[in-house]
Amino acid sequence: MSDAAPLEIPSGFRASGVKAGIKPSGSPDLAVIVADSTCSAAGAFTTNRVAAAPVRWDRAIVPSEAIRAIVINAGNANAATGAEGFENARRTAEVAAERLGCQAEHVLVASTGVIGHQLPMDRVEAGVIAAIDAATDDPSGFHAASAAILTTDSRPKVVSLRRKTETGKTIRLLGLAKGAAMIGPRMATMLGFLVTDARVQMGTLQGILSEAVEETFNCISVEGHTSTNDSVLMLSGARGELPLRGADLTLFAGMVREACESLSRMIPDDGEGATHLITVEVRGCRDRDQARQVARAVADSPLVKTAIHGADPNWGRIVSAAGYSGVMFDESELSLDLDGVPLYRDGAPVAFDAAAVSDRIKNNREVTITLTLKQGDASIRFWTCDLTAEYVRLNADYTT
Amino acid sequence: MSDAAPLEIPSGFRASGVKAGIKPSGSPDLAVIVADSTCSAAGAFTTNRVAAAPVRWDRAIVPSEAIRAIVINAGNANAATGAEGFENARRTAEVAAERLGCQAEHVLVASTGVIGHQLPMDRVEAGVIAAIDAATDDPSGFHAASAAILTTDSRPKVVSLRRKTETGKTIRLLGLAKGAAMIGPRMATMLGFLVTDARVQMGTLQGILSEAVEETFNCISVEGHTSTNDSVLMLSGARGELPLRGADLTLFAGMVREACESLSRMIPDDGEGATHLITVEVRGCRDRDQARQVARAVADSPLVKTAIHGADPNWGRIVSAAGYSGVMFDESELSLDLDGVPLYRDGAPVAFDAAAVSDRIKNNREVTITLTLKQGDASIRFWTCDLTAEYVRLNADYTT
Repeated sequence: MSDAAPLEIPSGFRASGVKAGIKPSGSPDLAVIVADSTCSAAGAFTTNRVAAAPVRWDRAIVPSEAIRAIVINAGNANAATGAEGFENARRTAEVAAERLGCQAEHVLVASTGVIGHQLPMDRVEAGVIAAIDAATDDPSGFHAASAAILTTDSRPKVVSLRRKTETGKTIRLLGLAKGAAMIGPRMATMLGFLVTDARVQMGTLQGILSEAVEETFNCISVEGHTSTNDSVLMLSGARGELPLRGADLTLFAGMVREACESLSRMIPDDGEGATHLITVEVRGCRDRDQARQVARAVADSPLVKTAIHGADPNWGRIVSAAGYSGVMFDESELSLDLDGVPLYRDGAPVAFDAAAVSDRIKNNREVTITLTLKQGDASIRFWTCDLTAEYVRLNADYTT
Repeated sequence: MSDAAPLEIPSGFRASGVKAGIKPSGSPDLAVIVADSTCSAAGAFTTNRVAAAPVRWDRAIVPSEAIRAIVINAGNANAATGAEGFENARRTAEVAAERLGCQAEHVLVASTGVIGHQLPMDRVEAGVIAAIDAATDDPSGFHAASAAILTTDSRPKVVSLRRKTETGKTIRLLGLAKGAAMIGPRMATMLGFLVTDARVQMGTLQGILSEAVEETFNCISVEGHTSTNDSVLMLSGARGELPLRGADLTLFAGMVREACESLSRMIPDDGEGATHLITVEVRGCRDRDQARQVARAVADSPLVKTAIHGADPNWGRIVSAAGYSGVMFDESELSLDLDGVPLYRDGAPVAFDAAAVSDRIKNNREVTITLTLKQGDASIRFWTCDLTAEYVRLNADYTT
């Protein structure tokens, strides 16, 4: 959570998490988020050409004004599963729809886990029915959902916001996410779910979500491997209110941005084996895409990530990663600061106290790398984690 | 070496490796390759925007018909060192030129080691003179050079070829390389040096080298971090023979290709902490660049590399890496084999004996991943290594 406050559940939504028996561990592995009436829905999805079956299902549906539920399973990604996998995604939605009295196209689905295995549909179907029946508007339901969507995460990722608008409305926004590996930043990375009791028209909702995702979920990585299943889904207004307008909509967009940023930072912070959360700030670029391209190259460099793990202010690895990012610049335009300490100015090294910078990295979980070019005013912040021997250990034996 | 044969030294060349005191360890760290008379020279260099000073020096000179020597130092990359660094590269060439009785522009330089520190020029200058004086056409000189250019490499990388042409000429081609990390595949990766007694005109030589580099040094990675210093330099004909023509030139181009492939495979095979050499074959693509783009995404994925390290046939990581490579394809066009065992056909999983495939990976140092698309006839082979906890250990404390 972004703070210690209790969850504020947006009115009109219920949730649950159950043990469907998909994970061999027997941990909770199936969650639902149910709306009392039809919602606006927006989504952002992986750009991986090997997109998972649930991604293909949802992508055909959102944005929508008629969504009633999201069904999420962990333990099996339903990715690279061919036609049978797509039919299983459709059938999952259908089973939920039958229980809710709506159509399959009113239900979104999401999956995460191992790639290349068919879903155990008997267990999934029974789990969907049990989860819908167990869904509650009590915070316990959302806590249960946040736990049931995890795979190798060490902790649930939840954010809860409440704001009063100038027109006196109360907006509640609740977000859930999962992800600790196979986190690459080329779309909405990982699974994220946002629900709000503010009613926003689907086109507007999609625009607000897409913009927020660009600067949050699309600005994180663990190891740079873009998943087949990444999805961020957002449901708005389950109680039939009038759509937000004007200043209220601006306030709401800010809340979405804040919730997405909170959730997306939690992912590299919980990256497999991570001991540091690294913020890569890139400034002075022509546009946001260029800034992100530089940031991503730095964030995805195993040499940068291992240097931070070793509390080693080996800044040559950082400037050289910027150098191969594909962005055209002259070396003399480049400067670098680490936690505010200048290391490199206009293409030449700066004398600095390496032992002090090393101690600073060693004694803090968060590190900020700031790269400055001289090409414009665009900037970006990108979040990643360090690369540790524990990451290797965890990933050298995940399926077998 | 590609085989156990003794080194065949191309006539007209001498070499040496000495301890100049650049490496704190006191190991040999300065090598020279000297030609008896002016050579044709070709080169291929990093595309990193933060190019090292020696790269900027050489790039302005090659191709050339007037090269007399290459000076190589290890222990200091002379990269990200600003104007002072460039002056040091020029001065290094000048000191060698004075000793050889030629001009600075007739000497190429190369550096490898830590980024961001100025070269200790007093030691470099004394080392250059000592190395030139020690240079010999005995194989011992080239063995010494191959050792003096190493950094974290566990062993020297040398290839020696001899072929008889149809016209009765004997061509000798000797290659040296170094590199075990900061190996990314966006140019001539790492340092490579080729010398031959065949005389080839500089334009032709550059064409032959560039073509060979495209399919060899540009098809390897350790962790995908493109260095600031990558250079492959080739010297041809130090004895004033007539240039090769026709079938002799074709034979020679084949030798260059073979030598480059041998050397480039040695680099990921000696990748820091590596326990497997992984060949990624990509077939059925529209063109070579597209095939390489897919291969690079697979080869650079930490999830693929850790899976191979764990002898885990977790093929979903491989197909999903192909999926985010940026190459457009439909999932149903994609097939995957691992060491010849079909795992995925036309977008759907194939039943296979996971334990047998795992055993096969565990018991062999080499693994071949074959991805097949259905878009054309172009293919590529790309070499990388697995990612191990030892790599993390080595890189978490390299400078401090």
